Amino acid sequence: MQSIKQKIRDIPDFPKPGIVFKDITPLVKDPVACRRAIQLLIQPFLDKDITAVAGMEARGFIFGALAAWELGIPFIPLRKPGKLPYDVQSICYDLEYGSAQLEIHIDALDSTDRVLLIDDLLATGGTAKASCELIELLGASVVACGFVIELDFLQGREKLQGYEVHSLLHY
Amino acid sequence: MQSIKQKIRDIPDFPKPGIVFKDITPLVKDPVACRRAIQLLIQPFLDKDITAVAGMEARGFIFGALAAWELGIPFIPLRKPGKLPYDVQSICYDLEYGSAQLEIHIDALDSTDRVLLIDDLLATGGTAKASCELIELLGASVVACGFVIELDFLQGREKLQGYEVHSLLHY
Repeated sequence: MQSIKQKIRDIPDFPKPGIVFKDITPLVKDPVACRRAIQLLIQPFLDKDITAVAGMEARGFIFGALAAWELGIPFIPLRKPGKLPYDVQSICYDLEYGSAQLEIHIDALDSTDRVLLIDDLLATGGTAKASCELIELLGASVVACGFVIELDFLQGREKLQGYEVHSLLHY
Repeated sequence: MQSIKQKIRDIPDFPKPGIVFKDITPLVKDPVACRRAIQLLIQPFLDKDITAVAGMEARGFIFGALAAWELGIPFIPLRKPGKLPYDVQSICYDLEYGSAQLEIHIDALDSTDRVLLIDDLLATGGTAKASCELIELLGASVVACGFVIELDFLQGREKLQGYEVHSLLHY
């Protein structure tokens, strides 16, 4: 895991003073470390009959698409409002300041689907929780959530109670 | 190629009346067709000593990351302003109405790099041209641009004169 952790770069004061941002671009720049990360991310779910991987715009598209590729199953994009062209199911959710919205195509999943949700980072868990609920609004099941990085001190895992959460790196 | 084309869905009047949007979500939902698309996208460049794949936010992250994975080389994200946390090189470019900006981390590429630029769609070519110039601002070479879809009637290829352009599907 150390070889993966070395590829996460701390950026102080981004996007605002006092925040230390975890930059994943060195990880996706290293094909060996990136491959290892994806394999470790999906490894607990290889025997869980996952039928689709869902990933959130935009960094979740990178890790989600790679996880889906490696599992040989569909990749389902979750997007910000107005980006998905076909009929969508939407969900609104609260952020620390204000609110946000996520969308999924209504024919992306159905009640037979068992979904692995993938994102680069679990922070407060608001986006991940909304993503799980959005998937469930289509009748599908969320089997687990996988993250490259989990910021333990933000306790996002508590917001995801009832879901299996698997994170590679903890800070 | 027909099996890939069948996975592109026409959405009339999106994002505005009169536009027929090419929806790639059915393609990424089909692992067999998606794998075939990525393999065909990279096939002409297997012997071209490509050292990195660059992809534009957000759909370009899906196809770019998969192409880089399949080639076993770095993936370099190009993003909208304010999204990349480390020091960036920026480029402004004109759109039909107004202007836009793209950014790349300054240490993403160097003069030894030979880059394959990947995106889902070649339309007017403005974003692709700016992406090539951004890559060159870091001293790297653009070996070719690969697109899943090319809208021939928008003549984006003319804007990319001097670059090899490889598109899977033409409309």
